[in-house]
Amino acid sequence: MSHSCVFAPTGVTIKPILYADGVLKMIDQRLLPTEEVWLEYTDYRAVAEAIVTMVVRGAPAIGVAAAYGAAFGARDIQATDGADFMRQFEAVCAHLAATRPTAVNLFWALKRMKSFAAANASAGQPVENLKIGLEYEALAINDEDIRINLAMGRHGAPLIPDGARVLTHCNAGALATAGFGTALGVIRAAVAAGKKVSVVADETRPFLQGARLTAWELSRDGIDTTLICDNMAGYLMSKGEIDCVIVGADRIAANGDVANKIGTYTVAILAKEHNIPFYVAAPLSTIDLELSDGSLIPIEERDAREVTHIGDKPLAPDNIRVRNPAFDVTPARLVTAIITERGALLGNYSEDLRRIKAGA
Amino acid sequence: MSHSCVFAPTGVTIKPILYADGVLKMIDQRLLPTEEVWLEYTDYRAVAEAIVTMVVRGAPAIGVAAAYGAAFGARDIQATDGADFMRQFEAVCAHLAATRPTAVNLFWALKRMKSFAAANASAGQPVENLKIGLEYEALAINDEDIRINLAMGRHGAPLIPDGARVLTHCNAGALATAGFGTALGVIRAAVAAGKKVSVVADETRPFLQGARLTAWELSRDGIDTTLICDNMAGYLMSKGEIDCVIVGADRIAANGDVANKIGTYTVAILAKEHNIPFYVAAPLSTIDLELSDGSLIPIEERDAREVTHIGDKPLAPDNIRVRNPAFDVTPARLVTAIITERGALLGNYSEDLRRIKAGA
Repeated sequence: MSHSCVFAPTGVTIKPILYADGVLKMIDQRLLPTEEVWLEYTDYRAVAEAIVTMVVRGAPAIGVAAAYGAAFGARDIQATDGADFMRQFEAVCAHLAATRPTAVNLFWALKRMKSFAAANASAGQPVENLKIGLEYEALAINDEDIRINLAMGRHGAPLIPDGARVLTHCNAGALATAGFGTALGVIRAAVAAGKKVSVVADETRPFLQGARLTAWELSRDGIDTTLICDNMAGYLMSKGEIDCVIVGADRIAANGDVANKIGTYTVAILAKEHNIPFYVAAPLSTIDLELSDGSLIPIEERDAREVTHIGDKPLAPDNIRVRNPAFDVTPARLVTAIITERGALLGNYSEDLRRIKAGA
Repeated sequence: MSHSCVFAPTGVTIKPILYADGVLKMIDQRLLPTEEVWLEYTDYRAVAEAIVTMVVRGAPAIGVAAAYGAAFGARDIQATDGADFMRQFEAVCAHLAATRPTAVNLFWALKRMKSFAAANASAGQPVENLKIGLEYEALAINDEDIRINLAMGRHGAPLIPDGARVLTHCNAGALATAGFGTALGVIRAAVAAGKKVSVVADETRPFLQGARLTAWELSRDGIDTTLICDNMAGYLMSKGEIDCVIVGADRIAANGDVANKIGTYTVAILAKEHNIPFYVAAPLSTIDLELSDGSLIPIEERDAREVTHIGDKPLAPDNIRVRNPAFDVTPARLVTAIITERGALLGNYSEDLRRIKAGA
């Protein structure tokens, strides 16, 4: 493969996923902010491992990485005909799908890659064309993700008042996407529109996406940022120091319930208690109309060591029992608006999510 | 000084503050659970430094340590008469009082030491007797703290149902007191009464008192404990996995507003949202009738480095702005009961705190 992602509009300063000449490069998000190390991938199994170990994380970024992984898997298939190719390609996609359960963008991207391959195989395209086509499809998913984030920024920016002090949780930024970001994209768009915006970033234990990634990328873009521990948000709200909350999402059920990074639910309850708007920014690919409500979203439990250690340093007694749910579900009633690339929805989610996803 | 703290009833397995032969020994709570290092003190300035740097922490433990510090200061005074002694002793106590602003037990203990000295100086006791008397007074404060915790346990244990899964925040345990603990004392008393109780411990960023101290001391006592990050409590409550909350306090205003470790307010809001009882266990010395409500309680802001680093390891970009309030205030309306050594109060705090503190 020799094609590259070329879409690079103004304002997209950080892209964690680069593709050129058949090689995928991803910044190792486990090492930020102290080290900026780029890892190279040409094999789908290695891409799957990068998703599991969180070299790449963030629902949209996982989708983009998986698409490239699928293209790599396709490239290496030795097949006699389209049907043979599709059998092997299904196995590649199944391997990539078995990495993380909660973010639906992973399954969305793989489904799109499979649909593309199946349609072209059915149309009698030779195997070599399927491989080239799948590379283009991954590039399209990558480029579209950035365009979608820019569109979300346009739709979301009007919701952020001039002078707003905005709380965010986890990293729904450039690093969680192909570039620009979902929640942080809305903040970037508000800043680009000339508004004075300051951000309060929850550190987001245990993986510290807020401290390590959000603080890093907003500082790089010169956006005023203050870091707090997750348990300090309530205090700042009680002091009148937060004007709105904006977060990303890993999966949104048909009724508007939102799965996002663990702790989001708590922030939403705090926002309600203090009458602060709570916004979710997510592309349509995050909306899963197959699940009627959030109780059906699978919640990944990750390794205890993420909680008990920072690097090699133990923070707790040996062998202490740990719970480590990586996500929680915020009920739709706590969500003031869901910002998508086709506009912001304000509460009538059961109807409007279906309508907007259908393109109506 | 050659007297020792001798009060050691059954069930008091962990005492972080030991005194014998004129030497104060305190376990270095900054190093737990990975290292158990005991530091020795014979000088009041060093005790003050131990309070500032959190070698010793927890409102009642700070009070006990300050009392010994005051006794050390008294011992070293060269004074010609009682009035001269009192002038110098006031300066010692002022130095110890300037260590941390929020926990009122510090000021309570120093006030008690000053009152003792003043009364005996007025009565014409010679300076050497004042010094010996102050040593005894510190020992009394130490021993009383353990007795008070045992009494709180007796009054609080009936509130913990058999089979309860109890959430706690920070460390209101043996390590936060002279022994047994306030909130964890109630849990210990419930277990001693034959109830099956399991504890969910918030890790409590940034100082990790839950991960390092609560997990350590409950494990040592064989009490079933699960560690979570602070932002996971809401998730467990939403799943029906928490039956009640019990925490300590650093200062309780006259109307029942409770200052406690940062994050307590959020836990209280979560408890209300899920209809879970929220209990506070605190000795009468934590009740400050001079402050009408919690908005008057001074909230300490600590160093940014507690948030940005674990030991020497950076968790965030250099020079990121940080907020690090060490405490927050939970309004009385969110507190189901305040458990004291004279009984549990159930909501009529403005009247009952005054009455119970007066001994009525």
